[in-house]
Amino acid sequence: MSQPLYGAIEAGGTKFVCAVGSGPDDLRTARFPTSTPAATMAPVIDFFRQLNSGRLAAIGIGSFGPIDLHKDSPDYGRITSTPKPGWQNFDLCGTVAAALGVPIGFDTDVAASALGEGRWGGARGLSDFLYLTVGTGVGGAAVVEGRVLHGLIHPEMGHVRIPHDTVRDPFAGSCPYHADCFEGLACGPAMNARWGVPAQQLPPDHEAWALEANYIALGLVNFALTLSPQRMLLGGGVMQQPHIFELVRDDFARLLNGYVQHDEVLHHLDSYIVPPSLGGDAGVLGGFVLAEQARKEQQ
Amino acid sequence: MSQPLYGAIEAGGTKFVCAVGSGPDDLRTARFPTSTPAATMAPVIDFFRQLNSGRLAAIGIGSFGPIDLHKDSPDYGRITSTPKPGWQNFDLCGTVAAALGVPIGFDTDVAASALGEGRWGGARGLSDFLYLTVGTGVGGAAVVEGRVLHGLIHPEMGHVRIPHDTVRDPFAGSCPYHADCFEGLACGPAMNARWGVPAQQLPPDHEAWALEANYIALGLVNFALTLSPQRMLLGGGVMQQPHIFELVRDDFARLLNGYVQHDEVLHHLDSYIVPPSLGGDAGVLGGFVLAEQARKEQQ
Repeated sequence: MSQPLYGAIEAGGTKFVCAVGSGPDDLRTARFPTSTPAATMAPVIDFFRQLNSGRLAAIGIGSFGPIDLHKDSPDYGRITSTPKPGWQNFDLCGTVAAALGVPIGFDTDVAASALGEGRWGGARGLSDFLYLTVGTGVGGAAVVEGRVLHGLIHPEMGHVRIPHDTVRDPFAGSCPYHADCFEGLACGPAMNARWGVPAQQLPPDHEAWALEANYIALGLVNFALTLSPQRMLLGGGVMQQPHIFELVRDDFARLLNGYVQHDEVLHHLDSYIVPPSLGGDAGVLGGFVLAEQARKEQQ
Repeated sequence: MSQPLYGAIEAGGTKFVCAVGSGPDDLRTARFPTSTPAATMAPVIDFFRQLNSGRLAAIGIGSFGPIDLHKDSPDYGRITSTPKPGWQNFDLCGTVAAALGVPIGFDTDVAASALGEGRWGGARGLSDFLYLTVGTGVGGAAVVEGRVLHGLIHPEMGHVRIPHDTVRDPFAGSCPYHADCFEGLACGPAMNARWGVPAQQLPPDHEAWALEANYIALGLVNFALTLSPQRMLLGGGVMQQPHIFELVRDDFARLLNGYVQHDEVLHHLDSYIVPPSLGGDAGVLGGFVLAEQARKEQQ
């Protein structure tokens, strides 16, 4: 018999990406703009009903947050305290499960992307890695022994504190909670606020990139020393400038100063700090992995 | 039949603590000063030979480092690049295994303490927690889903970078690799160098403690946001001042600023950031857990 067919939803603040398939080779996707829950979910549900005729084994959802991931919580599967109008406390998992009657896997959007990259992309074959996205915000997912680390809730790596040299960079930071935390210094909107133009309009030789690379390297040093990953994947809008990777690797090596005595970290940063390889498909492909896990748990 | 009898070794830079038992209630220990490997290991081996008469099911070792923890490495079980004379490349596991002929579990000293606290101490019943020691150095072990996180090598949490306000604290930091990393700012020798007296001689109302608590809180915020632990245990010489815990909790709450929306973090920091509860026995009790794991892997 052929392998099971899965569904996936990458639930984002601006669009929902839906997919059916079993991996990168038989992927079919569709996108729907995010509006109200009712207006967004109707075409999402229709997509799965039309495409699969009841053959879906499970659906995996990677969602924007904050979300409740605790299976013993009454709010499990819900989007919780988002400022997005209409979505507060929306039962995303329950709505999909009720409409389609299949097991549902659920995690954060960044966790889903990490799982996709771990199965088919830039972290294939690794048990322990970090997936970090630097864009509108900064978010990270850690995979430890093949599973997404959740702990008490889930990590919020964008909000770690890093050194901020206010002489070199007087910008106060853009985070409404912490001002100059990692995200507050390094996210796309912080770059825009600091330099007066969007990041993608800053030329590659602009001083903005060396400063940005320094902040990203400081964050990565802290994650590397705390999680000891086998590789770190950096995605998101800010990382679309290919030249920034070399700047980040140089600063990472300088900051670590030979302390982590492993060949990969000492001599192969070009394969240790890398872009993801699945592009925009990582989230829905990770949704297939979440769907597979949900199916196994029900069996 | 009674439960198996285990051995444990807490291998430290100044002493080796050896133990036989199955838990806190039947613990027998002995201490031997650390000198050369030969002069240290002879009484260690004798201790186990005399006490158990061949009844030990396994021995667990928590060791000072750096050590090689990769089971597929030719150097597994060895102390590697320590500056301690005579101990470079010493085959600690192999020496104990050859002399006593039992399965050997092996991890860092801080990982062993974490496992002890997780089974019998301040983290009992938790699947995800952090054990941090602030003393001569700063070291941490993360337990994730019940297992010590290793990853590529093992974490080196003491060396994360945290903000350093050089106006408030002009001290340059004591870390030979990174100057003002977390350990370089917050370890016992850094306090001694900054204030001119050992930490234990600084009175509780000395400004040193508010600064120290701030650095520890900055480190904890980063670990909490990266690992999402259910609890954080803080041990080591510097943490022997009971009044510092309240200072750390206050700063931790101020720095996090309500961002982690969980009752435990928002309202119960007195049970979220705590001292270990096993005192000096955590390391050898964790050795029993390592021994148990080694025995199960051999079965």
